[in-house]
Amino acid sequence: MIDTPTLVDQYCHGVLRTELGLGTFEAHLGRTAGPPAPGTTFFDTQTGFAVRRWCPPLLGLEPHCPPARYLARRRELGVLESGRRLLRATGIATYLVDTGLPGDLTGLPEMAATGDADAHEIVRLEQLAEQVADTSGTVDGFLANLAEAVHGAAASAVAFTSVGGARHGLALAPEPPGPGEVRGATGRWLAARQVGGRLTDPVLLRHLRWSAVASGRPLQLHVGVDDPLLLTDFAAATAGLGTDLVLLPGYPYHRHAAHLASVFPHVYADVGPALAHTGAGAASVLAETLELAPFGKLLFSSGARGLPELHVVGARIFREALARVLSGWVVDGAWCRSDAQRVAEMIAAGNARRVYGLAH
Amino acid sequence: MIDTPTLVDQYCHGVLRTELGLGTFEAHLGRTAGPPAPGTTFFDTQTGFAVRRWCPPLLGLEPHCPPARYLARRRELGVLESGRRLLRATGIATYLVDTGLPGDLTGLPEMAATGDADAHEIVRLEQLAEQVADTSGTVDGFLANLAEAVHGAAASAVAFTSVGGARHGLALAPEPPGPGEVRGATGRWLAARQVGGRLTDPVLLRHLRWSAVASGRPLQLHVGVDDPLLLTDFAAATAGLGTDLVLLPGYPYHRHAAHLASVFPHVYADVGPALAHTGAGAASVLAETLELAPFGKLLFSSGARGLPELHVVGARIFREALARVLSGWVVDGAWCRSDAQRVAEMIAAGNARRVYGLAH
Amino acid sequence: MIDTPTLVDQYCHGVLRTELGLGTFEAHLGRTAGPPAPGTTFFDTQTGFAVRRWCPPLLGLEPHCPPARYLARRRELGVLESGRRLLRATGIATYLVDTGLPGDLTGLPEMAATGDADAHEIVRLEQLAEQVADTSGTVDGFLANLAEAVHGAAASAVAFTSVGGARHGLALAPEPPGPGEVRGATGRWLAARQVGGRLTDPVLLRHLRWSAVASGRPLQLHVGVDDPLLLTDFAAATAGLGTDLVLLPGYPYHRHAAHLASVFPHVYADVGPALAHTGAGAASVLAETLELAPFGKLLFSSGARGLPELHVVGARIFREALARVLSGWVVDGAWCRSDAQRVAEMIAAGNARRVYGLAH
Repeated sequence: MIDTPTLVDQYCHGVLRTELGLGTFEAHLGRTAGPPAPGTTFFDTQTGFAVRRWCPPLLGLEPHCPPARYLARRRELGVLESGRRLLRATGIATYLVDTGLPGDLTGLPEMAATGDADAHEIVRLEQLAEQVADTSGTVDGFLANLAEAVHGAAASAVAFTSVGGARHGLALAPEPPGPGEVRGATGRWLAARQVGGRLTDPVLLRHLRWSAVASGRPLQLHVGVDDPLLLTDFAAATAGLGTDLVLLPGYPYHRHAAHLASVFPHVYADVGPALAHTGAGAASVLAETLELAPFGKLLFSSGARGLPELHVVGARIFREALARVLSGWVVDGAWCRSDAQRVAEMIAAGNARRVYGLAH
Repeated sequence: MIDTPTLVDQYCHGVLRTELGLGTFEAHLGRTAGPPAPGTTFFDTQTGFAVRRWCPPLLGLEPHCPPARYLARRRELGVLESGRRLLRATGIATYLVDTGLPGDLTGLPEMAATGDADAHEIVRLEQLAEQVADTSGTVDGFLANLAEAVHGAAASAVAFTSVGGARHGLALAPEPPGPGEVRGATGRWLAARQVGGRLTDPVLLRHLRWSAVASGRPLQLHVGVDDPLLLTDFAAATAGLGTDLVLLPGYPYHRHAAHLASVFPHVYADVGPALAHTGAGAASVLAETLELAPFGKLLFSSGARGLPELHVVGARIFREALARVLSGWVVDGAWCRSDAQRVAEMIAAGNARRVYGLAH
Repeated sequence: MIDTPTLVDQYCHGVLRTELGLGTFEAHLGRTAGPPAPGTTFFDTQTGFAVRRWCPPLLGLEPHCPPARYLARRRELGVLESGRRLLRATGIATYLVDTGLPGDLTGLPEMAATGDADAHEIVRLEQLAEQVADTSGTVDGFLANLAEAVHGAAASAVAFTSVGGARHGLALAPEPPGPGEVRGATGRWLAARQVGGRLTDPVLLRHLRWSAVASGRPLQLHVGVDDPLLLTDFAAATAGLGTDLVLLPGYPYHRHAAHLASVFPHVYADVGPALAHTGAGAASVLAETLELAPFGKLLFSSGARGLPELHVVGARIFREALARVLSGWVVDGAWCRSDAQRVAEMIAAGNARRVYGLAH
């Protein structure tokens, strides 16, 4: 009844270029870097079951076929052809890709070509700063180069993303650090740092956030499993500046993310990976997100990384959950059909096009 | 199947006396004082869709008609006649009205007359103290006048309400402040205060709470979006004193509010505005509240303010969600029908009548 | 469609040996030691309604019959015969019994005989330490006797359980306390303690936890209504040591418990009492738990204490909720039937058999 044939994926990564064995494939289904518990497998998760539901038919197999059978067929087709078949079945017309992850992942042009779609870059602030640090010898040099790098990224990328909050505490002080603080923190970080060292200093994380806010590009904030209400003060401090904040991904605090999106005009909430991870339970999670969030403030993403299967399940679970929830409300008489279809298109693509300034 | 024709609205406000344009009307649908985000409207929310579902038919229009059409009809009928039609369609037989809000809102007699219902007053503690401060010149005078004002309010009002917790942190020290502390805080507040200044001092907020507890009247505590478990120590400190605490409204921590209501005999939980704000998703929120809360500890409210449309959707959404959830459990065989009907009447009206000492 | 005829109850207590009147029976349905609020009864709760649904037919009465009628029939049959009829209708083949509660409760052999089932012991760490303290005169004696008691318990019991976290804060320091700290805390505790005194010292609670971890037996951690994410650091500190942690019971933070189970291979989550307490709403709670938790990481328990009726409703509600949720997903096409049946058996019994090393 309610359909969303065209999606904008507001946050994902590329896919692996290499052929995968069963174990490597399984490892990408887990939520942790380590192995599964003895006697268990990451295929026995909602994500694993969703991959087995949606992906085998796209490669010519029965849904729910055994993982080994699926992997054999995947290798038979080859990583490129299976990637093409999978990505082109997602309905995703535009990928916004966080290119700041390590690993042999496809970049923008390959994502666009493989998926027959548009692809735009999301710049990860921490990685940008680390790259600048690798080539800057002095505090002044680093800060000037960073400012230039942020300025340049804002001209070519559609958004910035920051993982610092999820990794180092959402409760960073909300205001921008003063110039002296930034210089001091930079000096200490550069002095202690080896090439490739990660950025975890809270003063510099705040400086990065505010540099992105000053650019005017939407800033995606990863909240992990933390409570996004910890970002309330930062949201208040950035209100009215003209830069939008997008909370990623927000489960299990998706109701809190929706609350923030309802009280701050410039705050938006993601509805993607929470669904991809919860699989058969996704309709409930989506319905909960739709309780408080204004319908113009929610954006789909797959959050997928590494496996095109994850782009598939992200998109399919979202589309099915959205259709189920909204159709149910239409059947109940709570919503009229035209409103439901309109809201579906907003969350699937329209809101993202407006927030990121994408062409139709 | 399950019906609740008569409601006691345990917490609401009056309605605006003036004709409203589209923009002013829309502003009352938002959860924030500011405008909606660019490209969005507060009509595109669960509350907005619920208003468009339930209210147009009460004014002779099709459900889900466009907002402008609804507002035109509303002006055609006039604010008084549309208010009468709307309020009288709520099923609310008794309004408990927090009269402590600014704005040109109807008072008790008008609410009663317009809605063909009873209306009783809820006294907002912070406003009471601010009014007393406006007319008291000394610390002694203020404290004596405040005690008298609380005593007087307890004689005429059905309950006290405090918003101080939601605004200034639920984690106020649970015990009553000592007389010296109260005198000191009063002196500082009165000295710094200008006429009309708000009360935010934590010592005085605690003194107000405990003054209300001593009166024996139920005390409604606004928890906002905070975790009501922060009130655990205050609940423990007030247990056995004979005064009931009512948590308002509790979303998204409604399960925590239900938990408190299940472990403290004198703690009650509200089930109203959480439903009005979540609209089509209200049945799930209500079901979650009913997981842990004893059925004698939940009370309906609309939480409505300003628009009689909000009283309508508060009441309609509640009644429909309650009927849906309880009927479903009856169909499943989990509950018997007579229990379901009995519990529905308790939450809709009976519990409030018992807690607030209202006549049938 | 989906059935789980055989259950392992991974956490419960014995049942009362004495005949019960209506008031004493009702008291066991509440979640607090005190009486219900005036005008209310603990029968008007999800647990109360579930008892009236499931238990009367097992004693030859109509479902939902009045409590007084049920209690009369229960006394007519006698506590032993009614206990036999009730426990044998649960489908529980193996009880893991926390024997560390006061009161005239049946022990392992009686639970096994009455329920026609296996029964194994769970040793409550705090009680073990308190018993050792009752018979130890010196710090050295206490610590040596405690080590021996833990060692002995690990040889005969299937698991340890600790309630210290839920009672005294989950945010205990994660690392094991040093020997000097333990000796100091022991000295202070023994000096201040009277026979029968409870153990609440955080250093000793940590020492107990780590003694249990060193034993290799699974350690059940009670989280109460607190957020199990507070245990993240303890989970990280115990990762890779070969001892499993089981979070009990986790509501209303069951999604957080599921998250921990998904990111730490050695962390498991309980799905029992949260269902027993939420009754008709249990399917939603179970579905939420199944959103993120790997299916090999969830274990059923009844959490029942005192009344065999609570073992019945724990088991029945779990089985019905599980069948409903998984069957729904099969009907939707999200899961295939064989996977659903397999997962059901894992959560009902298989995972517990693997984690606790129980024979089939």
